[in-house]
Amino acid sequence: MNFDPAQDLDGGVTERAFTLGDVTGILWTPPDASPSAPVPVVLMGQPGGIGMRRMYPRLAARARSAAAQGFAAVSIELPGSGDRPPLPGADQARADLRAAIAAGEQPGADVVDRLVLPLVEQAVPEWQTTLDAVLDLPEVGGPVGFSGGVIAIGVRLAVVEPRIAAAGLFAGSAIPRTTTEEARRVTIPVHVLLQWDDEGNDRGAALELFDAFGSAEKTLLANTGGHTGVPSSASEDAARFFARHLGGAQS
Amino acid sequence: MNFDPAQDLDGGVTERAFTLGDVTGILWTPPDASPSAPVPVVLMGQPGGIGMRRMYPRLAARARSAAAQGFAAVSIELPGSGDRPPLPGADQARADLRAAIAAGEQPGADVVDRLVLPLVEQAVPEWQTTLDAVLDLPEVGGPVGFSGGVIAIGVRLAVVEPRIAAAGLFAGSAIPRTTTEEARRVTIPVHVLLQWDDEGNDRGAALELFDAFGSAEKTLLANTGGHTGVPSSASEDAARFFARHLGGAQS
Repeated sequence: MNFDPAQDLDGGVTERAFTLGDVTGILWTPPDASPSAPVPVVLMGQPGGIGMRRMYPRLAARARSAAAQGFAAVSIELPGSGDRPPLPGADQARADLRAAIAAGEQPGADVVDRLVLPLVEQAVPEWQTTLDAVLDLPEVGGPVGFSGGVIAIGVRLAVVEPRIAAAGLFAGSAIPRTTTEEARRVTIPVHVLLQWDDEGNDRGAALELFDAFGSAEKTLLANTGGHTGVPSSASEDAARFFARHLGGAQS
Repeated sequence: MNFDPAQDLDGGVTERAFTLGDVTGILWTPPDASPSAPVPVVLMGQPGGIGMRRMYPRLAARARSAAAQGFAAVSIELPGSGDRPPLPGADQARADLRAAIAAGEQPGADVVDRLVLPLVEQAVPEWQTTLDAVLDLPEVGGPVGFSGGVIAIGVRLAVVEPRIAAAGLFAGSAIPRTTTEEARRVTIPVHVLLQWDDEGNDRGAALELFDAFGSAEKTLLANTGGHTGVPSSASEDAARFFARHLGGAQS
């Protein structure tokens, strides 16, 4: 894990861009993180195809909220985003998805699979490598949460990565059928955010996914509004979910 | 409104049983309620067919929570509950409902209508009369919230009673088709609690009802667990909803 020089943000938050093999990312740590008091960490997912440069303001805001709870936060550039080479077939799949949405139709299962599954296959091991490195830092301990971004990545990580203790997921991206099947094997607490009027999002698929989760503790929080209209009360609810399960300063 | 002698509860909450025509009920007021600082009030609904005597511990706990937010709370005996005469056809409708649930079926629309609609027709004007009387008290001002109980009563009140500013509803009772239609005319903020694994509850009908609400601001909070398994975090969420919309002490 090679770090660029640290940046000090308001409130004592430290921001460090890093490179880890093919992966680039940013780590944010709260002012009280130290080897004698290592902090929990939230893996912050992103939507596909946008890239960290454009996502930076929102990521930094989420990281500051996590830091206010006493958590570190880390985000990595997704395969096919930013300056990374496009995933095979992704451009065509995205065009097919947009065409379906523009026609007022739900995209077919094959379009969703072509768009999402290659991303999941490549991103999940990168997240795991990142987690290895982050947990090796003396000031970061655990527990580990996963938050937001491509929901199929969050589900796969919740299944394969036992170090993740809680997942706050945003049901705002296409859901492959296999993701719903995988969700039956998820047992950690999940908090699913759904925007009820999300344009082009398949609400039925989101409800089916929520139903499928095998977790004894799962919460669905649905609000009126489109994809980008998540109310501040919902963000606060998600923060309380992580506070309960990662044991941060705020409760 | 004829009051029995007041009871002082812990924390300075005052409890007063009352009679208002055919209606009996209980009013709880927080310690800081006074004519110079009248408080908001929450109308606390109840499930049908149980009665206030058995419901008292839960009602008193909800009233204490409301008082901690600076709100008065009031609850009335539903028609057909407690010592009140049974509603015509209610016993048969309830038996039919139980038979359907025992057979693992959803009860028919006619059973739901026979069970719920006579209750709505009689309970709603009684709630309005109660609200008239409560708002005449110098220590109670407004705004007014409706919380819990038979969801069809809450929906009807939200449509016909302009003094209600926000409704926290529990999707844990049978929903007549006409209730879903009425919900399209609801415009106040609604917060709907759903227990995802509620025994004998029609989850699809609950989701359809949520979708139907005409409110610009509506939230669905669904949690794993049965009818009586509402987690404490959900109660806290509902309290925050009322704090936002009734403007109480806690926010």
